[in-house]
Amino acid sequence: MKHDIDVIVREVGLRDGLQIHQTFMPTDRKLAWIQAEAAAGVSEIEVTSYVPAKVIPQFADAEEVTVRSLGIPGLTVAALIPNFRGAERGIDLGVHKLNFVMSVSRTHNMNNVRREREESVADFKRIVELVRSQPAGKRPILVGGLATALGCSFEGRVPVDDVVRYAVALAEAGADELVVPDTVGYADPAHVKRVFKAVLAAVGKLPVAAHFHDTRGTGLANVTAALDCGVTRFDASLAGIGGCPFAPGATGNIVMDDLVFMLDSMGLRTGVDIEKLVAVREIVRETLPDIEMHGAIARAGLPKNYVGAAARAAA
Amino acid sequence: MKHDIDVIVREVGLRDGLQIHQTFMPTDRKLAWIQAEAAAGVSEIEVTSYVPAKVIPQFADAEEVTVRSLGIPGLTVAALIPNFRGAERGIDLGVHKLNFVMSVSRTHNMNNVRREREESVADFKRIVELVRSQPAGKRPILVGGLATALGCSFEGRVPVDDVVRYAVALAEAGADELVVPDTVGYADPAHVKRVFKAVLAAVGKLPVAAHFHDTRGTGLANVTAALDCGVTRFDASLAGIGGCPFAPGATGNIVMDDLVFMLDSMGLRTGVDIEKLVAVREIVRETLPDIEMHGAIARAGLPKNYVGAAARAAA
Repeated sequence: MKHDIDVIVREVGLRDGLQIHQTFMPTDRKLAWIQAEAAAGVSEIEVTSYVPAKVIPQFADAEEVTVRSLGIPGLTVAALIPNFRGAERGIDLGVHKLNFVMSVSRTHNMNNVRREREESVADFKRIVELVRSQPAGKRPILVGGLATALGCSFEGRVPVDDVVRYAVALAEAGADELVVPDTVGYADPAHVKRVFKAVLAAVGKLPVAAHFHDTRGTGLANVTAALDCGVTRFDASLAGIGGCPFAPGATGNIVMDDLVFMLDSMGLRTGVDIEKLVAVREIVRETLPDIEMHGAIARAGLPKNYVGAAARAAA
Repeated sequence: MKHDIDVIVREVGLRDGLQIHQTFMPTDRKLAWIQAEAAAGVSEIEVTSYVPAKVIPQFADAEEVTVRSLGIPGLTVAALIPNFRGAERGIDLGVHKLNFVMSVSRTHNMNNVRREREESVADFKRIVELVRSQPAGKRPILVGGLATALGCSFEGRVPVDDVVRYAVALAEAGADELVVPDTVGYADPAHVKRVFKAVLAAVGKLPVAAHFHDTRGTGLANVTAALDCGVTRFDASLAGIGGCPFAPGATGNIVMDDLVFMLDSMGLRTGVDIEKLVAVREIVRETLPDIEMHGAIARAGLPKNYVGAAARAAA
């Protein structure tokens, strides 16, 4: 982490947000979004997913998006991988970070990747071997993602012990980092504390990121709870795009612009310029006029006489 | 507090929400809203404001709304009072609770009630005397409200020392309870903790409630922070109605339905039936079709296999 950053915010809207949007966002516009957000100070962006284009046509341009994003100075370029083949594609492209995901809920994992959870752990081990077999300069950071860790649309609440079990399994298999997502927006701050405290206690010094959806309005409250546990890496999507296939009209990921405002207002430096970030919304709005956009700070503006975290830290 | 309630949620939409809405809500519809929300389990409702009807025509029916609300069994009927005359009106009507409000920000107090802050404290002392001169059965609970405690649209951030000074002044004058509002939606969880910790430390055992607006998306995160300080009384408005005159499209108070969901999901009993509460939104929607309504739980529904706080406590 850079010495002048307290919390890393990571844009996932191009993957998690766009994956349920039927209209293809032209590659040039994706790049415009990525470039503008990087210029606003967002240091890590999940730019695409290496799923087959026939499964999610939105990601038919995964190669081009990756390669062009890698040309942006200072940006950590991440991509989701559903399996070993995805890891191979990412490594061939030279992507910086591979976000592997399995589900802690058995039913969700079976539905999503047609695998028992132990099979997914075994897949992850093979990916670790693949990554480690690369020459030093070509090794991506490998992230283990625990989908449904905070609730499952099939099973409801997921036992904390199960989350810990698979967090430890991915950590022991060789993950460089973990991410604990509230895939369907079920979490509340009390449960967030229970889960993150347990996971953090179990995996030692491994970085653990949080990934919240704002489906039921608790997204930023959950961020507050995770901050209290010591979490300093958060996923979000610009304008909260994404929605939820099970909840019409719901927001998707927590709103990046509101997240950055809240953190900044708390005195936590993100390295992001809020006003530049809010301006990036126009790129999405122009390109996808039918996409639902959320966010309070874009409507309400900054408070009177607002002084951001960086200025306060420097004063 | 009832032994089976952990957190008291208080409806303020009929006052704080409706006061900036130009269309008069017919008295019968206000009562339908109040009755339905009381039936859903909300135990305290700020039903009106005793400001002159020529100032805010929405409250031209303050007397009738108060009297009819007092007929609802078990409901604590509260009303806002801007001054001594308002207190007299409330006492004549037999209202249960008088919510006096002054602003911690000097500029805001001058603009709002044309008084220096010390003059407002003096007004409050006169109101305390009036209340205490009533026979025992006719004495309302008197609340001291500290508007702009968490930020002011004229002055920006308000010094914590000023909040403490006027909290102590109202407490020493004889308030039965205090409420600390984020009048214009400037607060973040870190600042909430600073302010509430300082106020709670200064006023001893006096109950201190929180009143948040969700103007910049941080409302429920601020609730989480206040809960961490030990606050157990929260204001909210159904569907977040209210808006902000300075921020078009912004929500008003935090959304009652989302607040109740979050608390309930955390295992904190509110005594409110979420599904009955969400159903009350229809009364507002039918009556005021042009009012902007917010809220995530009404769109997304409860999580799969959801078990509420009361059932968990009983299990």
